[in-house]
This record gives sequence, structure tokens and C-alpha cells, in this order.
Amino acid sequence: MRRIITIGRNFGSGGREVGRRLAERLGIAYYDHEIVTEMAKRTNLTEEYIRQIEESRTIPLLPITIGMTFSPQFYPMLDQSLQVFTEQSKIIKEMAEKSDCVIVGRCADYLLREKNPLRLFIYADMEYRIKRCRARGDADEDLSDKGLRARIQGVDKERARYYQLYTNQTWGDPENYDLCINTSRMDIKVLTEALAMFIEKTTH
Amino acid sequence: MRRIITIGRNFGSGGREVGRRLAERLGIAYYDHEIVTEMAKRTNLTEEYIRQIEESRTIPLLPITIGMTFSPQFYPMLDQSLQVFTEQSKIIKEMAEKSDCVIVGRCADYLLREKNPLRLFIYADMEYRIKRCRARGDADEDLSDKGLRARIQGVDKERARYYQLYTNQTWGDPENYDLCINTSRMDIKVLTEALAMFIEKTTH
Repeated sequence: MRRIITIGRNFGSGGREVGRRLAERLGIAYYDHEIVTEMAKRTNLTEEYIRQIEESRTIPLLPITIGMTFSPQFYPMLDQSLQVFTEQSKIIKEMAEKSDCVIVGRCADYLLREKNPLRLFIYADMEYRIKRCRARGDADEDLSDKGLRARIQGVDKERARYYQLYTNQTWGDPENYDLCINTSRMDIKVLTEALAMFIEKTTH
Repeated sequence: MRRIITIGRNFGSGGREVGRRLAERLGIAYYDHEIVTEMAKRTNLTEEYIRQIEESRTIPLLPITIGMTFSPQFYPMLDQSLQVFTEQSKIIKEMAEKSDCVIVGRCADYLLREKNPLRLFIYADMEYRIKRCRARGDADEDLSDKGLRARIQGVDKERARYYQLYTNQTWGDPENYDLCINTSRMDIKVLTEALAMFIEKTTH
């Protein structure tokens, strides 16, 4: 049986680490930044620029060139985001076609719905996420807890908006996932091992 | 390590079956109707009457007698529900004190929060739940799909209201659980085995 595992995650919940460890443990491919790298190869955009578009930051617009086709026009922001999303969707589908894999974020659960992926959502309470971000240096060191909380909520809000825009579904709503896992009281390494066993049992 | 597992569940999702099988597989106690039976022993109320109060149906009010204390007054509905809830809470805490166990429903996740239980929420999409209810004869056979959907939504609404009333938390909101499991695309037996392995790994 094919194993396609998609991971949606709260910022700071450890979802990315779960994904990376899970792929390693199951011996399957892991796609996260790899998607951005592949995007950069196929377009005239830098990885940094693509990441900014993904995160919907306000950025100066650049014309996008995909493959050998040159787009002579400047697009309004949404158009460009849509082009990036469309190209990224192709890459994700190609990757999932190639081999078993874990894909983090990027609406992969929705994009690959015909492949019947195991759709995970990893979340945690705010206290845990603040602690984790601080411990890992994921945030500016001078941020107060209040500032860090605002930052975390801001990232989540963008993820929710992005997911809603392209899937017309609610990000983090259990009905869009097979398994939602709260990492607040779990050790990520132990959790990953337990999850790997769960997946081996249910998808063998 | 003590294993206290609480299960909240959508009506028709198979949560109760998961609980029963899980307890059997892990070799620990299972409490569901057992709580009602114990309640009936300790009060002058019948099991049927207690179940009606639990489900917040409109029922004629009876005076409740707990243990040897006779309550001479008739209570308004909420007071009686509260008394039943209070007595039930005691029973649940006693049961969790006695041995490892799986407890279905009844705000056990909240009541036993100091024991750090593993809090599961079992859910499924409406299509699955309608199919399951029909296959198991959980609903009146003459109900249309539309009628069955209304019945299912009605039970869930009552569970949500009950949970909110006694915990001041939102029923089914992932933040109140450690693991939320969508049974729509899973085989309950396989799921239970996978879940048992997950629990053995994370709580050993």
C-alpha cells in the first residue's frame, strides 16, 4: 500500500520535526523546503522570494517565468500567488507520484486527496509553543512572551488564510484530517515512534 | 505508569466500540454503562431515569436520594442534573483511583485532569455515521437519511451542551484532547490495535 502522509501544523507545535523524523523512521521521502528548491529551479524566482510569497508577506512584485515560457506581464499579487501555488501543486503531485513520502504544509492534504493520504494535523497549546520557539531560537530573542504569542498567532492566521483560499476548507478543523495530535504533553521522539507504529499498522 | 484513557466521541463514530476494544486489548477496566449502574445502586433512581437525565431529555422530575440521605425537596431540573453529575463525578474518580481504565463520555477528561489522562476524541464524517447507525440499527429503521442526520446532530448538540455546562470547555475542540481520531476511513478493529500500540509506546 502506498504511504502518502500529509502534515498540517500549528506554528511551534513541532509538526515539522514530527514529519522529518517520521519520514526517516518509515524510510520514505520527506518534502518541505525541497518543494521550494524545486520551484526555484523551475522558475526565475529565488527560494527566498518564493518563501515570501508562500507566507503572503508584502513584497515587491516580480514577473514570474515558469519553465521556458516567459511571462511578459506584471501580475497583481493574487495572480502571482496563484501561479506559484499552481506550479507548486504540480510539483507536489509529481513528488507523491514518484514514491511514498511525508509532505509538510502547502495544502498537500487537499491537493493529494485522490491518493487517499493519511492526513495529520499537529497542534499544541500556546504555552508549549512559546516555550518551544524560545528554546529553539525560532523567534527573535528580544520578544516578550506577549510578543512571541502575537507572532505565533500571526503565522497561524496566515496559514489558515492560505489554506482557506486554496482549499475552501478550514485549516485545523478535525474533519479535514484523519488524526490530530496534541504535542503539548508528549515527547516528540517517543511520539514519532508511536506514530510510525500506528501508521505501519493502519496502512500495511 | 498509570493508564487512564478518556474518550469523547461523536454519536455514530464508533467511539464507544473503540473504547471497549481498547480496554479489552490493554487488559484494563472499561467504564461506560457501568457508571450508570453504580449510580443507580447509590441512589433511588433507576438506570433508565439516570440515562435520561444524562441525555438531558425532558422528563418528569423525581426527588433524588443519594446513599442514606433523603432529600425531601423537589429540585428544578438543573439542580437535579447537577446532583446526578456530582455523584457521577465521585464514582468516576473512585473508579480511576482503583485501577487503569477507559472511561467513555461524562466529561471524564475534565474530571480526571489531575491524573493526566490520555484524552481521546473519536469523530467521523456524517456520511460514515449515518451508514454506521443504519447498519447497527442504532436508529429507528423508518428514519430517512435526513431524519437520521437530524437525530445524530441532535445527540451531538446535547453532548456539547452537557460538556460545556460542566467543564466550561468546548466539546470536540482539539485543544481539550491529546489525540483526535477520524474513523471515517479506518477499520475499527485495525484502528484499535494501532491505537493500543500507540498508547503502549507513549505511556510505558
